[in-house]
Amino acid sequence: MDVREYIEANAADFFADLKEWLSIPSISGNPAHAVDVRRSAAWLSGHLRETGFPTVEVWETPGLPAVFAEWPAADPGAPTVLVYGHHDVQPIEPIEEWVTDPFAPIEDGDRLIGRGSSDDKGQVLFHSLGLRAGIAASAATAPPVTIKMLVEGEEESGSPNLPDLLRAHADRLACDVIVVSDTTMWLADVPSMCTGMRGLTEAELALYGPDTDLHSGSFGGAVPNPLHAMASLLAGLHDTDGRVTLPGFYDGVVPLSDEERRLFAKLPFDEGEWLATAGNSRAPHGERGFTTLERVWARPTAEVNGMWGGHTGPGGKTIVPSEAHAKVSFRLVAGQDPAEVQRSFRAYVEANTPPGIRAEVALPSGGFRACFSPIDSAGVRAARRAMERAFGTDVLFTREGGSGPEADLSEILDAPLVFVAVGLDSDRIHAPNEKVEMPLLLKGAEAAAYMWDEFATALR
Amino acid sequence: MDVREYIEANAADFFADLKEWLSIPSISGNPAHAVDVRRSAAWLSGHLRETGFPTVEVWETPGLPAVFAEWPAADPGAPTVLVYGHHDVQPIEPIEEWVTDPFAPIEDGDRLIGRGSSDDKGQVLFHSLGLRAGIAASAATAPPVTIKMLVEGEEESGSPNLPDLLRAHADRLACDVIVVSDTTMWLADVPSMCTGMRGLTEAELALYGPDTDLHSGSFGGAVPNPLHAMASLLAGLHDTDGRVTLPGFYDGVVPLSDEERRLFAKLPFDEGEWLATAGNSRAPHGERGFTTLERVWARPTAEVNGMWGGHTGPGGKTIVPSEAHAKVSFRLVAGQDPAEVQRSFRAYVEANTPPGIRAEVALPSGGFRACFSPIDSAGVRAARRAMERAFGTDVLFTREGGSGPEADLSEILDAPLVFVAVGLDSDRIHAPNEKVEMPLLLKGAEAAAYMWDEFATALR
Repeated sequence: MDVREYIEANAADFFADLKEWLSIPSISGNPAHAVDVRRSAAWLSGHLRETGFPTVEVWETPGLPAVFAEWPAADPGAPTVLVYGHHDVQPIEPIEEWVTDPFAPIEDGDRLIGRGSSDDKGQVLFHSLGLRAGIAASAATAPPVTIKMLVEGEEESGSPNLPDLLRAHADRLACDVIVVSDTTMWLADVPSMCTGMRGLTEAELALYGPDTDLHSGSFGGAVPNPLHAMASLLAGLHDTDGRVTLPGFYDGVVPLSDEERRLFAKLPFDEGEWLATAGNSRAPHGERGFTTLERVWARPTAEVNGMWGGHTGPGGKTIVPSEAHAKVSFRLVAGQDPAEVQRSFRAYVEANTPPGIRAEVALPSGGFRACFSPIDSAGVRAARRAMERAFGTDVLFTREGGSGPEADLSEILDAPLVFVAVGLDSDRIHAPNEKVEMPLLLKGAEAAAYMWDEFATALR
Repeated sequence: MDVREYIEANAADFFADLKEWLSIPSISGNPAHAVDVRRSAAWLSGHLRETGFPTVEVWETPGLPAVFAEWPAADPGAPTVLVYGHHDVQPIEPIEEWVTDPFAPIEDGDRLIGRGSSDDKGQVLFHSLGLRAGIAASAATAPPVTIKMLVEGEEESGSPNLPDLLRAHADRLACDVIVVSDTTMWLADVPSMCTGMRGLTEAELALYGPDTDLHSGSFGGAVPNPLHAMASLLAGLHDTDGRVTLPGFYDGVVPLSDEERRLFAKLPFDEGEWLATAGNSRAPHGERGFTTLERVWARPTAEVNGMWGGHTGPGGKTIVPSEAHAKVSFRLVAGQDPAEVQRSFRAYVEANTPPGIRAEVALPSGGFRACFSPIDSAGVRAARRAMERAFGTDVLFTREGGSGPEADLSEILDAPLVFVAVGLDSDRIHAPNEKVEMPLLLKGAEAAAYMWDEFATALR
């Protein structure tokens, strides 16, 4: 019985198991559901034991528990792969928009509808089906690589305890590569792999002029106005090519390879549709020389998130205001150090604040680096081959503009990331009526089954 | 008995009268004191009748009343002068900071302390003393020019009914020159005359990007950010020389004459002290090539009074915001048309708003022009001679950066303004413990006495 036959034979049981798990309302963001998140962890533990993992543990945190499992390879020299996912789910509000009970999953044609079906329980569970299929097809008793799984219970709440958990268990979690199954493919018929997520760092800028708001008749035109200084500082963050002007900002940025740009360009992309999803934005905009997808996926930004000062109420008030404020954030790509960007921003402000204005730069947190998996790295190539075997077609590449906890995973465990996932942007994750395409979950299982062999060869 | 002797002989009666008037709490901004503003108008009417004005009328408005008086010249061909002032006063809050009862005026050395002593009852009243002194000294029975007085009762509330009152009585108020006695001199020993006040026009700018705030990870760097566009538009309002960049902004601006700059420069001026009064501003700033006084008095400005958009609460929020807003005002000088400046601002915004951003410019009111009295005009020269005869020293020139209702007076009555006043910046007008220097009021009366002769000659 080959992998595909095994999966087909066991698909009904697989979806029955998944529906059972989806019935547990493991909403990490709602303290009333903490008990359900624990039930979810217990359910997954039992399931992984049944799958054959010799080691399954529930790891407590100061918040909600994660599940850890390990199945050693028969060959002690084999590589180790860590699979990351999460078993908690988003809240269900606005509940009146659900057409079915979010925690009574039902099938509708090829779709399975229910909270967590795509994000992320469905995508965690395909790994156990794939693993069993691979072992069955090879007539082995253990996987060809050591497989570890870490399925956390607070991802939808910002993974507040994950970094500490990773550090506390770094030895147990040591691995050669981390497989993340919590992203999406481009389209159901355009399988793809994410290869990066942008990092982030933030700053808050305050400019102080006169001690109090001044009458602009008596003083206007002869004292510095902090709002003018703020406008100049913020306007000066970009040049006319849409590039960020901070000295050194692009130093070390890993450029997009020609091959990656070529593959991005093969993704079917309708810019008009994309702009519609972007809050009906009326025109694309950004760094000259890059496409929209390249801009959001692979280029760093400086973005003003908020700005305020002076009179903001109704009517006019002819003042020279005392203060001006702005919140700025930077999306980062591979090769950029958040702390270095913050230092550069501070230096930029110091160098460009006019006489008579006092500037304060607050740096709320260190931020985090981008994650990045080069498409020609061994792990990505191996996972791509597995995906292509499962889907029977070319697998393209995407990235994501924002980030989850993946940067922490890679940095703390010091291992590269590989994103293998079969969710779709149309799965309505975080929204009412979340669904997953059942045939894609089975493709995910098939890719997972092939992946362990591919990793065993490629990472040895 | 010459003018000075008459004034000295009648000074005690003059101050007794003034204290009686100051005892009436004619606070126009407080409806509970409307009755007192009416009492104040009645008091002044009686006083002007006693002074000898054949015509004295209380002019009602939809708000509070003004007092009009007229004393025709003996010679029907003589010029006509309108004296403008106001009999209402500022509120007295914070009342706990007054060291005396604001409406129980007392003398403290040369000072008379009480609300309205400088702004503006003291300065209105010196005209009647001066007029009587002039007539007495000349042994005439009527003044050498036709003298009209208009003393309004709502100046401290923004003169909301003055324009209509002026239009309704334009025939009765017709004149060759308007004497305004509601400003200040430079210092007690540096007599000066104001020769201009800046005008004003305002605009509110709204920029709209995406329909909703967007996640800056998913969209940042590829759609236009209205806060970036706002920063660029506002930063672009000034060039590196501090000049306003709006096309045509300086067209028609009446330049400062070399003589006026020379006379400004003779005013004792300590920039450090001035900065301290400017809310402890740390450095002067403004249009290159002009001094601080020239900047606030005689140069137009663009001033951002308020700006807001995106996330302005605590913490970070990594969004591309949907909207950005700003309030902008322009101080204008002689030769600038408020409506033209508004048109230019609107055109500037239209020309410089990037693709994908929609701009809305709201123009709250038409604004008002600057008032300006050239130092070589007949009226200013005549009044200056009168001031120099009274003070026995050179009279210098100042301007004011903001404006009261004077622009309306000049525009509606189509007559030039001459500012003759003896208040001081240290008089604490609009603040607790307002005072006036009694010797200066007597100098004002003396200047007023000489002024009618000077006008009779100069304006014929």
